[in-house]
Amino acid sequence: MVIVMAPEATQQDVDAVVDLVVTAGGDAFVSRGVSRTIIGLIGDIAHFGALNLGTMPGVADVMRVSTPYKLVSRDHHPDRSVVRVGGVPIGPGTATLVAGPCAVETPDQTLAAARMAQAAGATLLRGGAYKPRTSPYAFQGLGEAGLRILADVRAETGLPVVTEVVDAHDVELVASYADMLQVGTRNAQNFALLQAVGAAGRPVMLKRGMNATIEEWLMAAEYIAQRGNLDIVLCERGIRTFETATRNTLDISAVPVVQRLSHLPVIVDPSHSGGRRDLVLPLTRAAIAVGADGVIIDVHPRPEQALCDGPQALVDDDLAELAAIMTDLPPMVGRVPAALAAAG
Amino acid sequence: MVIVMAPEATQQDVDAVVDLVVTAGGDAFVSRGVSRTIIGLIGDIAHFGALNLGTMPGVADVMRVSTPYKLVSRDHHPDRSVVRVGGVPIGPGTATLVAGPCAVETPDQTLAAARMAQAAGATLLRGGAYKPRTSPYAFQGLGEAGLRILADVRAETGLPVVTEVVDAHDVELVASYADMLQVGTRNAQNFALLQAVGAAGRPVMLKRGMNATIEEWLMAAEYIAQRGNLDIVLCERGIRTFETATRNTLDISAVPVVQRLSHLPVIVDPSHSGGRRDLVLPLTRAAIAVGADGVIIDVHPRPEQALCDGPQALVDDDLAELAAIMTDLPPMVGRVPAALAAAG
Amino acid sequence: MVIVMAPEATQQDVDAVVDLVVTAGGDAFVSRGVSRTIIGLIGDIAHFGALNLGTMPGVADVMRVSTPYKLVSRDHHPDRSVVRVGGVPIGPGTATLVAGPCAVETPDQTLAAARMAQAAGATLLRGGAYKPRTSPYAFQGLGEAGLRILADVRAETGLPVVTEVVDAHDVELVASYADMLQVGTRNAQNFALLQAVGAAGRPVMLKRGMNATIEEWLMAAEYIAQRGNLDIVLCERGIRTFETATRNTLDISAVPVVQRLSHLPVIVDPSHSGGRRDLVLPLTRAAIAVGADGVIIDVHPRPEQALCDGPQALVDDDLAELAAIMTDLPPMVGRVPAALAAAG
Amino acid sequence: MVIVMAPEATQQDVDAVVDLVVTAGGDAFVSRGVSRTIIGLIGDIAHFGALNLGTMPGVADVMRVSTPYKLVSRDHHPDRSVVRVGGVPIGPGTATLVAGPCAVETPDQTLAAARMAQAAGATLLRGGAYKPRTSPYAFQGLGEAGLRILADVRAETGLPVVTEVVDAHDVELVASYADMLQVGTRNAQNFALLQAVGAAGRPVMLKRGMNATIEEWLMAAEYIAQRGNLDIVLCERGIRTFETATRNTLDISAVPVVQRLSHLPVIVDPSHSGGRRDLVLPLTRAAIAVGADGVIIDVHPRPEQALCDGPQALVDDDLAELAAIMTDLPPMVGRVPAALAAAG
Repeated sequence: MVIVMAPEATQQDVDAVVDLVVTAGGDAFVSRGVSRTIIGLIGDIAHFGALNLGTMPGVADVMRVSTPYKLVSRDHHPDRSVVRVGGVPIGPGTATLVAGPCAVETPDQTLAAARMAQAAGATLLRGGAYKPRTSPYAFQGLGEAGLRILADVRAETGLPVVTEVVDAHDVELVASYADMLQVGTRNAQNFALLQAVGAAGRPVMLKRGMNATIEEWLMAAEYIAQRGNLDIVLCERGIRTFETATRNTLDISAVPVVQRLSHLPVIVDPSHSGGRRDLVLPLTRAAIAVGADGVIIDVHPRPEQALCDGPQALVDDDLAELAAIMTDLPPMVGRVPAALAAAG
Repeated sequence: MVIVMAPEATQQDVDAVVDLVVTAGGDAFVSRGVSRTIIGLIGDIAHFGALNLGTMPGVADVMRVSTPYKLVSRDHHPDRSVVRVGGVPIGPGTATLVAGPCAVETPDQTLAAARMAQAAGATLLRGGAYKPRTSPYAFQGLGEAGLRILADVRAETGLPVVTEVVDAHDVELVASYADMLQVGTRNAQNFALLQAVGAAGRPVMLKRGMNATIEEWLMAAEYIAQRGNLDIVLCERGIRTFETATRNTLDISAVPVVQRLSHLPVIVDPSHSGGRRDLVLPLTRAAIAVGADGVIIDVHPRPEQALCDGPQALVDDDLAELAAIMTDLPPMVGRVPAALAAAG
Repeated sequence: MVIVMAPEATQQDVDAVVDLVVTAGGDAFVSRGVSRTIIGLIGDIAHFGALNLGTMPGVADVMRVSTPYKLVSRDHHPDRSVVRVGGVPIGPGTATLVAGPCAVETPDQTLAAARMAQAAGATLLRGGAYKPRTSPYAFQGLGEAGLRILADVRAETGLPVVTEVVDAHDVELVASYADMLQVGTRNAQNFALLQAVGAAGRPVMLKRGMNATIEEWLMAAEYIAQRGNLDIVLCERGIRTFETATRNTLDISAVPVVQRLSHLPVIVDPSHSGGRRDLVLPLTRAAIAVGADGVIIDVHPRPEQALCDGPQALVDDDLAELAAIMTDLPPMVGRVPAALAAAG
Repeated sequence: MVIVMAPEATQQDVDAVVDLVVTAGGDAFVSRGVSRTIIGLIGDIAHFGALNLGTMPGVADVMRVSTPYKLVSRDHHPDRSVVRVGGVPIGPGTATLVAGPCAVETPDQTLAAARMAQAAGATLLRGGAYKPRTSPYAFQGLGEAGLRILADVRAETGLPVVTEVVDAHDVELVASYADMLQVGTRNAQNFALLQAVGAAGRPVMLKRGMNATIEEWLMAAEYIAQRGNLDIVLCERGIRTFETATRNTLDISAVPVVQRLSHLPVIVDPSHSGGRRDLVLPLTRAAIAVGADGVIIDVHPRPEQALCDGPQALVDDDLAELAAIMTDLPPMVGRVPAALAAAG
């Protein structure tokens, strides 16, 4: 941590900072510049954080120089991790396709969507039984009935199931059906939920909050990790910006940035970021090319009847092209296509 | 709802939209322009929403023309509402000061902060026992022990208590101690929590999500209202923008905008939006002047020792000026100062 | 300047940084922490900036600790400045009202708007002869004919004229008619224009770029100051955010933040930030209350016929309330109303 | 254009709108809904725009249903365009690499960078002689001396030259040296400059303003097109968001969105958007994969000595990988690599 003193700070101000740090068990090095003095602190940052050094007389700025997350950081875990979901790997070396309906509506619709997903090379099934919706008047999901449908479709297709949980107190129930728990963008700082999924004994897919900085996203993952669960897959799904041509702005740069900061796998959601079917395939190409460890995509047998996010779902006509992308592009970036990885 | 057809849409495309709407029990008026045809829909918008008209051939855009929230809208409730918290009014006619420590730390600190709040004219006490923190390594609040401290300080000072709840399953417990439940910015779309506070029989202060549009904020309020609770006070607390000189950007315009759209009271949090003590008093002036129904402010007897957000807390030296603002400015905008309203 | 080394940086990496800085004529202090080493640099920051220290092996981050602007900074100019425009002061002690039509359309319309401005207490007339418009099909202003109208109206009313210049090569012409040159939000980083107005011998009103950080805004002012012109008034006019209920988001906090960083006066444009007539008076109240040195407001005798931004112009019915705000509020924040200041 | 009337609008309000539109030579269709009436307008939108319908009594909203740009729209020009720069095509069918130094510093540095560019497969040389810099104390470019260096390097290497122009009155001079004129992000709404480059008889590369919506970007292109120049290449270079891990946020979705709206070619700048060398190659992959018509990249023989944006320049070690990307990826998206296109 570095303390920058104001130009008008006195020697007494500097001494007061040093004294406080030393009293707190740290060490401080003072460097006097032409117009400003800076003080470098050595010791436990968590402890200094509580000192409120920024409110002391003469202090202009307090700059953090180390990362606030530990367990998910790559600093002490240089190799990137592979997370296994029902035996399917997500991480370096593969490009995994997770696909399925945005919301579970009926057994037939879910099974049809799962078959579409498999046709495109998916090795994991997505589908929502609990849907966080902006409007209380919108379809909120089938709840446990939806989870049962997902379990039936898993039995039928062999695809492990990824599904969202929206309340800390549903975690145990959802975990009893699902292979992977998803935390959605609106709950990205619902810390009670993060702690609950951290203790659930299931891999977790953590979507980025649409307003979360990369650092906040990694801090959210740290909440899960702190409960003993490091089987976390991060999912970039677009951030909120001024641009309205797309629902959100896919932050494609976040993929390599996060892969450098954290050992956790990172996948991309090209369906929800753009909110438009015509963007899903181009953004899938971009995601695989930039080095994402996989993608998660909405498919629907009849999107014009979908109860949730129909406008962005891929349809039958798109599957051949999606399959081609997931087969041809991964080898260009040193990865095995998901379908082959599963077969291998 | 208005359907805008693409320039290349055929007569058949137009007919298909009309047929679908009519089949769904609605009515459609077709207006043919020079380059485009538009179709006006008449009937129940919630029903049309499920039709996924946007995915039909030839449809370029679907534009909503009515507000998606009903209970909190001013359309059918033209008079602005007054919400009473332990007898203290928030709404048109008054300018209420809610003040207290960001986090409850000790009985002494909480009582001292409450006395500071009263000295400045506060008629409601704020204080957090459950703190949602970005870092899992930061102080998370005292929990029920903090609630007991708040209750004791209420008994001592007579100030009704406003405190945050972060988990749907804590709502009953928190409601048993608090006069008003606060939903924080990170939980602004935690729909399970919104529904729970809607059923708790206590007034609710709903902070704006730092990434929430005004419409999404009102939809969040609609979740609470839908459970039968219309005692909702909205709190503007800054949105996330590119500017880093302040923690968030206080959207001062949101106050009159929301007051026009909704009958609910709107207050401002000048402490958390800026995150800087030197901005609290200027922003308090701006908030009262723009027509807010009150402000909520952090005070702390010794901010350099605060366990949470010390850099933004007002101190003893600021109280006289805060009291003057809360006494002198409200009459300039046709309001009674909170202290007088309470006395009256 | 502080160099933060990566955890894996070697002693050789540290030495290389120190050597480069010393060779460049600076001095470096090395502080070794538990996980990282930091290096404090002493000397001329402009020179170090050119060294590209950030690209050296082992360097994790380069943090600037002093402000990059000098002439407009308050560091060496602690008293806040007063800028005089045709004898009218803008700065601490007064609250100045600049008002007039968005665009000069006809002599009658301009004179009528100037009379409206005066009725509300304005002591400076605004009006655009050169209009930067998003669409090439929109009205672009009358050019020099508009400048002549403004000069005539000044002769008739006695109000000094503030008008925008959009091209470096028009500066001399515009300066021959105007009392103050305005640089608009879209030209906030048009450096050729900034340098030209810096050399024009007229006070300048510099609007904040709608995407400019406060630091970039002050750097733009530094471009003007560097040419010898310190008669600069900064104008906050809203920034671009995700919120679409208002045209832009008025960053009201920027007023006290900038007044602390710079000695230049800061005014607020409540008309263009919101883009809605119903917000102008509330935002004017907020601006004066937060401590702005003035406001600039659109008025129009017949806004339904305005060729530019009619929806936001105040009309006759609003003038009495605007006059009351500009008379009653300034004394609450230790300022003299503009009309009295002019009379005095 | 669609006029949405407020719920409380009277029949008289509706009639007034219709009368005004008819008087203006248009036609209006009235559709009465349950709670609102909407009025569809038929005729010349530019004319209706001037009517200020939004300020009329009873009008709640005015919604535009057609695009405000014409010449650059794909509506009446369905085939995507190819722009030729010194014989080099940019557009569908190819993936063009433009590379070179951010700023021209010396003849040797520029020639060395051009050789690096060629080694990577570039067929166009970029390099700035006029540099718009945030700080007036930063290197501002060599001006005409830089243009002469670029012309010499073109003679030596055969690479046509792309270079920025920052002032309308330099356009003729810059056009006398350059094969393509670049308008930078800070000048994206400098309309005087846009009009000047529109009349210069040279192809133009128009960078997206870092705060420009896609619609505003296309309107800026319309300014150029209106002067008779349709040889415009759009360049996505990142937008300003809240995320600070990268300098700007590359809006990768903008590429397919713009290609659907406009017939103009779209390329991507992976150097300036991220501002980090380690992101350039991953983002180049993403750009080609998403379907961009090319990329523009900074290279520098010795980035640690660069006078501008050294931290983001590719170096010798990166060239082989860049060449491989530009050779192997384009065929995956149905394109010919730039080097082959040039040879063919």
